[in-house]
Amino acid sequence: MNSPNVPDASLELSGEQMQQLVDAAMKRIGDFLDTLAEQPAWNDDDAVEAARSLNEPLPEAGKSIQPVLERLFNDVLKTGVNAAGPNYLAYVPGGGVPHAAVADLIASSVNRYIGIWSGAPGLAQLEATVLRWFADIIGYPPSANGFFTSGGSLSIWSAIVTARSCKLPQNFLRGTLYTSVQAHHSIAKAARFAGFPEENVRAIPVDSSFRVRSDLLRLQIEEDRRDGWQPFALVGNAGTTNTGAVDNLDELANIAEEENLWLHHDASYGGFFMLTERGRAVLHGIDRADSVTLDPHKSLFMPYGIGCLLARDGEQLKRAHQLRGEYMAAASTNSEFTDFCDISPELTRNCRALRVWLPIQLHGIAPFRRNLDEKLDLARYAAGELRDLNGELNDDLEVVADPQLTVVAFRLVRAGLSQDELNQLNSDLRDRINSARKVLLTPTFLHGLYVIRICVLCFRTHRETIDTCLQEIRRAVREV
Amino acid sequence: MNSPNVPDASLELSGEQMQQLVDAAMKRIGDFLDTLAEQPAWNDDDAVEAARSLNEPLPEAGKSIQPVLERLFNDVLKTGVNAAGPNYLAYVPGGGVPHAAVADLIASSVNRYIGIWSGAPGLAQLEATVLRWFADIIGYPPSANGFFTSGGSLSIWSAIVTARSCKLPQNFLRGTLYTSVQAHHSIAKAARFAGFPEENVRAIPVDSSFRVRSDLLRLQIEEDRRDGWQPFALVGNAGTTNTGAVDNLDELANIAEEENLWLHHDASYGGFFMLTERGRAVLHGIDRADSVTLDPHKSLFMPYGIGCLLARDGEQLKRAHQLRGEYMAAASTNSEFTDFCDISPELTRNCRALRVWLPIQLHGIAPFRRNLDEKLDLARYAAGELRDLNGELNDDLEVVADPQLTVVAFRLVRAGLSQDELNQLNSDLRDRINSARKVLLTPTFLHGLYVIRICVLCFRTHRETIDTCLQEIRRAVREV
Repeated sequence: MNSPNVPDASLELSGEQMQQLVDAAMKRIGDFLDTLAEQPAWNDDDAVEAARSLNEPLPEAGKSIQPVLERLFNDVLKTGVNAAGPNYLAYVPGGGVPHAAVADLIASSVNRYIGIWSGAPGLAQLEATVLRWFADIIGYPPSANGFFTSGGSLSIWSAIVTARSCKLPQNFLRGTLYTSVQAHHSIAKAARFAGFPEENVRAIPVDSSFRVRSDLLRLQIEEDRRDGWQPFALVGNAGTTNTGAVDNLDELANIAEEENLWLHHDASYGGFFMLTERGRAVLHGIDRADSVTLDPHKSLFMPYGIGCLLARDGEQLKRAHQLRGEYMAAASTNSEFTDFCDISPELTRNCRALRVWLPIQLHGIAPFRRNLDEKLDLARYAAGELRDLNGELNDDLEVVADPQLTVVAFRLVRAGLSQDELNQLNSDLRDRINSARKVLLTPTFLHGLYVIRICVLCFRTHRETIDTCLQEIRRAVREV
Repeated sequence: MNSPNVPDASLELSGEQMQQLVDAAMKRIGDFLDTLAEQPAWNDDDAVEAARSLNEPLPEAGKSIQPVLERLFNDVLKTGVNAAGPNYLAYVPGGGVPHAAVADLIASSVNRYIGIWSGAPGLAQLEATVLRWFADIIGYPPSANGFFTSGGSLSIWSAIVTARSCKLPQNFLRGTLYTSVQAHHSIAKAARFAGFPEENVRAIPVDSSFRVRSDLLRLQIEEDRRDGWQPFALVGNAGTTNTGAVDNLDELANIAEEENLWLHHDASYGGFFMLTERGRAVLHGIDRADSVTLDPHKSLFMPYGIGCLLARDGEQLKRAHQLRGEYMAAASTNSEFTDFCDISPELTRNCRALRVWLPIQLHGIAPFRRNLDEKLDLARYAAGELRDLNGELNDDLEVVADPQLTVVAFRLVRAGLSQDELNQLNSDLRDRINSARKVLLTPTFLHGLYVIRICVLCFRTHRETIDTCLQEIRRAVREV
């Protein structure tokens, strides 16, 4: 035999070399964290040119650390929205606690996979422990189980796959799924991926608080059964993206029981408000669902890249997901523990729970709860101040719905304008609010009306940011 | 209005506080990296007790850094397989270059989402750039596009969803998908999730080199058409998990063209061998596929948590995946750039490409290529040495297939034993090989025969590890 080639450049780092790389990165990260409040909420200057400059062929040779990090922090990261910062009040922000980034550093360094319990008994149990905490927060019994996903979309998809396998025959194409017109589009997308024709997703109208109309829901189910459809799943909204609306979860549980539907709640945004007294009141009955989607990267303030699916009966996840290959013959199982590959769509994946476990170990859950309470207060404060602005501005800022969680949706109404003109006015208003880059708000459409949203959820957002936001709204209303 | 509650414990870290946390973690990580070669390949001592000790209620209050990290590195991480180390020759190992962990630290700290280009134009383009590198490696034209997933399983699922939407009517339940009996089980699992009945996945027999029999494949397609099935997709194996077998990709491309099938290649393990001359010879024709799954956490040595789907025509990904919500009204699009949410199943997710981009920027691609060449050499070296052992041991170690990539599958054959007895013998042999914990090998079944696999892929695995492995095999054969 010839002796094997030996690479003349190792890809290894010694502990000391890695420390140097981390130190160089931490200089940049430290500056980033310490200046977050002063950074612009968004920046699109030269975004196209900056992006184009990153388009380059695969390099054969390497570069040294400093210029690479400089390019990353100066050119790559300078454009876009500042989703980590306090002034990002767009979509559904969480901020991303820095401890979680350190957890990712550890998890990726030790590089264990947790799809099979015996591969990493400690880390797999650590995931199971965090899942059990979440189940306790929701109020699920000991039979519950679940798994971590990359986010809400894939959690909802696995919920629909599970519902399909538990409730429908092999030919499931007449199966219908019910949710509200206010539901996140990932539900329709997940149903498509699971094989359902688009028309099988029934979007039921909502009441004036943007909660699903249970009377119309019952009628639609009845009509569908009459027409030979097979109603199989109901997806409740525990915090819509548009307005933070929470459906009447107890009423949905009653309907699901009566109609033998799989009940899933999309609590991506709202779920962790179960940590607060007000949240538990609004979300009452959430524990009666067959499954729940949670997004720690929203209301648990984690960085992007972690969602979760919980099922009240873990065995149902297994029925939908279990399938093994022959190369897994030696993976011993232990009925006391979960092999996540048996209850979820992934096999080899990284540990996702460490980034939740580490901050909770270091802080306990108390400050998470207090942060959520603060956000509930801030949203109510913002809604009240917006109403108070009307007298001062002699204009009509309409709060479209009182915040059930932490979204305030509002619009400017001026007499004599058509709907199109009002929409344009509010689009201009939003541009004006954002123009100073002190805050970033995103819009949505409600019954065809353009409205502007303030979503208060980032753990870094406190009273001063809301006051800045109100100040920017005041200025912008005067300008349009 | 009452003034909002202010949390009495912040979840924020200043740059300095984060540096302290990182320093404490890096002490442990540095030790871990510097002792990898001496650490046991696996450890299941007290695994059950260690796991149970992590089962605890949600803590209300926090703990200080040192005991938490001590518990993590001592109790959580001490059990399981050492998938980062050179001696882990099980399944399909990559190792996980440490630079990627630093990239994860950065990505999670700055917390940008890249599902919408305008949210992070630089980072989104950085993903597009890395995807273009991968497309170039495969040989895809400029029309190609793709996205990063958490791993191979979800990449294959999206490929099947795309194939379904491009090739089948809304009622797709008669659609049949073809692959070999050696295919990874994630293909059958993905087909199930996409809504196909289990029997619609046709597992075609293989030849003596474990490559799909194209004659039998053609016959099965013909028979299925006659019986009213709708053949729609063919999944080729570009490196099976069992033996590293690579189907005749050119022949599969011919069949897919003739039969109008979507051609997907599962190149999770084998794809990046396209960086080497020998790999390009074995994988010839891979660029003729409609889509390809790559797993940078395998043959590009990245930590777990990154897979990839490439499609020759990016528009087909869009047709299958595009769907938006009203709250995305303000997300401006730019036809020059990709909004990943339009071509993939996820909306909000973390940046996955930075962990590939950073090590390639720092090293160039050259050492990756040389590492792959070395692994090809090492597998051939191991196969030759195993054969040479027979004379020395006066026993019959059978190399079940010459390595096409970097898996050596072997078994011990002794005259007069039944198949069951031989399987038991080889199971005992594997236990003996692993017993000293100097290496970890996993088994598989080939045509009902228990065989032992050596998978040489971790970037940390060099000649001395293979010699240790051969030494352990020598010892174990003598013992059984």
